[in-house]
Amino acid sequence: MECQEKALFSMTLAVDDTPIMRLLVAQINPTIGDLAGNTQRIIEGIDRGKSQQVDLVIFPEMALSGYPPEDFLLLPHFMEAIAERLEEIVRATANLAVIVGLPRHHPHQREKALYNSAALIHNQHVVDFADKILLPTYDVFDERRYFASGDEVKIWRLHGRKIAVTICEDLWQHGGCLRFASYCRDPIVELRAKKPCCLINLSASPYSLHKFGARLNICLNAARSLECPVILCNQVGGNDSLIFDGYSLHVSPTGLLQCCHGFQEEEMVIHLPEARPPIPMERNVIRDLSRALVLGLRDYFRKLGFKKACLGLSGGIDSAVVASLAAEALGPSQVLGVSMPSRYSSPESTRDAAALAQNLGIDYREISIEPVFESYLHTLDSPFAGRPSDVTEENLQARIRGMLLMAFSNKFGYLVLSTGNKSELALGYSTLYGDMCGGLAVIGDVTKREVYALAQWINRREEVIPKYTIQRPPSAELRPNQKDCDALPDYEVIDHVLQAYVEDHRSPHWIADHFQYPLPLVQDLVKRIHLNEYKRRQAPPVLRVSEKAFSIGRRFPIVQRWIL
Amino acid sequence: MECQEKALFSMTLAVDDTPIMRLLVAQINPTIGDLAGNTQRIIEGIDRGKSQQVDLVIFPEMALSGYPPEDFLLLPHFMEAIAERLEEIVRATANLAVIVGLPRHHPHQREKALYNSAALIHNQHVVDFADKILLPTYDVFDERRYFASGDEVKIWRLHGRKIAVTICEDLWQHGGCLRFASYCRDPIVELRAKKPCCLINLSASPYSLHKFGARLNICLNAARSLECPVILCNQVGGNDSLIFDGYSLHVSPTGLLQCCHGFQEEEMVIHLPEARPPIPMERNVIRDLSRALVLGLRDYFRKLGFKKACLGLSGGIDSAVVASLAAEALGPSQVLGVSMPSRYSSPESTRDAAALAQNLGIDYREISIEPVFESYLHTLDSPFAGRPSDVTEENLQARIRGMLLMAFSNKFGYLVLSTGNKSELALGYSTLYGDMCGGLAVIGDVTKREVYALAQWINRREEVIPKYTIQRPPSAELRPNQKDCDALPDYEVIDHVLQAYVEDHRSPHWIADHFQYPLPLVQDLVKRIHLNEYKRRQAPPVLRVSEKAFSIGRRFPIVQRWIL
Repeated sequence: MECQEKALFSMTLAVDDTPIMRLLVAQINPTIGDLAGNTQRIIEGIDRGKSQQVDLVIFPEMALSGYPPEDFLLLPHFMEAIAERLEEIVRATANLAVIVGLPRHHPHQREKALYNSAALIHNQHVVDFADKILLPTYDVFDERRYFASGDEVKIWRLHGRKIAVTICEDLWQHGGCLRFASYCRDPIVELRAKKPCCLINLSASPYSLHKFGARLNICLNAARSLECPVILCNQVGGNDSLIFDGYSLHVSPTGLLQCCHGFQEEEMVIHLPEARPPIPMERNVIRDLSRALVLGLRDYFRKLGFKKACLGLSGGIDSAVVASLAAEALGPSQVLGVSMPSRYSSPESTRDAAALAQNLGIDYREISIEPVFESYLHTLDSPFAGRPSDVTEENLQARIRGMLLMAFSNKFGYLVLSTGNKSELALGYSTLYGDMCGGLAVIGDVTKREVYALAQWINRREEVIPKYTIQRPPSAELRPNQKDCDALPDYEVIDHVLQAYVEDHRSPHWIADHFQYPLPLVQDLVKRIHLNEYKRRQAPPVLRVSEKAFSIGRRFPIVQRWIL
Repeated sequence: MECQEKALFSMTLAVDDTPIMRLLVAQINPTIGDLAGNTQRIIEGIDRGKSQQVDLVIFPEMALSGYPPEDFLLLPHFMEAIAERLEEIVRATANLAVIVGLPRHHPHQREKALYNSAALIHNQHVVDFADKILLPTYDVFDERRYFASGDEVKIWRLHGRKIAVTICEDLWQHGGCLRFASYCRDPIVELRAKKPCCLINLSASPYSLHKFGARLNICLNAARSLECPVILCNQVGGNDSLIFDGYSLHVSPTGLLQCCHGFQEEEMVIHLPEARPPIPMERNVIRDLSRALVLGLRDYFRKLGFKKACLGLSGGIDSAVVASLAAEALGPSQVLGVSMPSRYSSPESTRDAAALAQNLGIDYREISIEPVFESYLHTLDSPFAGRPSDVTEENLQARIRGMLLMAFSNKFGYLVLSTGNKSELALGYSTLYGDMCGGLAVIGDVTKREVYALAQWINRREEVIPKYTIQRPPSAELRPNQKDCDALPDYEVIDHVLQAYVEDHRSPHWIADHFQYPLPLVQDLVKRIHLNEYKRRQAPPVLRVSEKAFSIGRRFPIVQRWIL
């Protein structure tokens, strides 16, 4: 490595005669398994680094493969292709240093054959690899399924500087912000004696509602402990349920110096050392939630090769919010809203659905489900003779709607959006193969109260979602005068119980005590959460925006007798 | 522990004056989270051990919690309840030694807070714990999500003997039979110097087609390496997708000495030392497959509290086999078969469906889907104007059938069985929300060729499944003269590609070379496997019977661009 230490460029001198090093942080949006496309993105980033005359270009964790590639990592021919693509990247690094995240085979006899690694490349040579030490294996992360743990934090001596290279989780033990893990090692503490001049972190750190603040904090903690700047390069983009928010960071012990925008590809040039003062960071949580969902939805379509979405418009707030997000993500002309009234639908529902479609500029159709509903009832008349009407007939209506949307999908190539929210998904207040139909559950990790906040955000400039849609009490309109509140407690109560039970692992007794709710009410909600596991197992992928989403990251058996 | 070494019972003397030790192996069927019920089962086993005057009773891995309890392990109140139930068990062990598997908190600072452990209990005291060392984190196993690795194999000095206690995977590295893992440690090698007089292994080792032979082999390997008997106590029963087959073993270096039956709760008494000669072990692979599916189906219903199943009878072989398995698992009177002919159904299909129902003695109904199909076509007439008939109309028929079955489920409390096989699930030759509807995909991990073998097995004594059902070419009957072979290659080709690509991680090039298939054919099949990931994500749980089942144990992203 000695030969790599001499500076290849004549460097600008800072006022105190320290040579200034210039870094380009490339916050890119890779697609899982798109090795050709991701390689091209990386080489384009390298080329822009050259044209901006930087010394070092940094890419996110697993930039080459996308994250998480899951069991593709177990395919030998996939890993061979990764190694070939790395060579292509290396050839593009003439007179430049590059750090790029990728999975790699390691030569040791370990339980797992791979490292989650960063290739340290300089002037067309792979100088070394920095391997991830802390391997998250909780919630949505399964890294110990694939990876062995790296031995120590790598110090790269580049241009006479000691640069420490870490990967994502390696920072988090020191931050003390982990909710679901606690490691025996703290790479930041181990680094102190090595006195790096800066710490680089490659991340594929997924968005959740309050993740930005936590991520900034762990960077500040590390910067203060090591008394050096921390540069975090994060992925951006959606891959299945996970949304990577970007917001790559440059912090010093005094505070945040630079930050990429969230939810878009971006680059920033960093000077080391950097004397500029810290900047304030103001974020609107609901605006970010909206942008996260739009990005997740757009990337799901784009990366799968779909262009058009259709969804049922009930006149209610959930479908109105999903239609608005889809119109923003795909363009209004790519979205079809279908109103499918029955005998129980109020005229206001159809009116509001039509008004919403007009406000958004999306395609709109009205199709009565009555004839099909009638023919089902007639077909089932004899087998069901003597039985009163019950949830069967309610589910039939929801399922006819689902089938009509799927018919539009089959005939015209729409991808159907499912519109259920997290509160409904939690309690099973939804019909399997009915309103749960679809390729993507856009707001399946958004609580009902957050849905209202999103509706207000969407209406911030003008009335897009009709006022009455927001104001009237929620109803599934599957029987006369049905209201959500007949079957469900107040949404505030549901959200408290969801947060405490699902995210914080509190017991029903603790929850009842803490919120002063009747114990049977809490027990009933917890019971419904578990009894409806079977429905969620067949739900479409949910865009994850909380710390604990259903259908990903939360793993409970269907068959169980702990909660009855 | 010294005080535990003296024998509490006067022991029978063997011919060579070595005291004989008597063990009871209790192959029980716990339910996940049913701590009260599992505790009762364990205490009943202890009581039977007492009445049979044994010295030691052995229960399977995680007998107290059931396996796998998944994220219940993360709930502090769940783990507290486990600790309380352990005390209850301990109180029942007067004058007896017991080994029982359970999860437990450990006192160390480790990445994970729990051990997968065995409590070594003697005369109402927990003498020690033996902790699992090798933690499977591949395929269906996620043990590193929850558990820290134990330090060393525990030797329990009981009645003057050195008994080594291991848990499941701890045996398998030595066996060399692992396909998806290779550990750095081999607990059996580490044990050699300790010269145990016998090795006990608690297992929750799930069934797959050829697992028994592998399990017997690893036990023989360990027995020969350690020159002592190996006693493996396995769970039995179904929990979600996993089926535990039992077949608890007692082997000596010379061969298999004793074996519990598969697929049922059972106990065996073992004498140590045991001078009897090895026994032969003959198994019928297809009979075992049938018994595995019957047990998985029965336990899914029993443990969820369901009694009745309904399914569509198409006149084809898949639904015939599922109906036969359900009749055996639940009793014929608890099963409803529904024939739902359309304009494209042949008269033979309906005839065979009726004959099958009569042969099985199950309830039977015939409901034409024509009126509902007509009303859908009429409703969609205007939106679909000018478009030719295509897969949309085929899917409509499958979905009407699914909806009718779901209506029976809602109205009468049937759980719907889905009848798709693994070959169809692999290639997406099935309709989402149509024939994929249901609470359980009974043969979702059974290849089409295995389905035929099951049909022959079911018909071994008399014609249960009509001959024509077995003989005629498979067809979905969703358009005139449709045959599976129009859309799919020969099922032998599909099975070879599935085995090589899905189970063995071979590349399409390797497969084409090896089997001398055209590369485009193999690539097309591999592409269909990946393109249909979105359907499988919404499939009901599959009963796992192979080494690599869809919907559990195989984790691939929907959004990917590696296979296009």
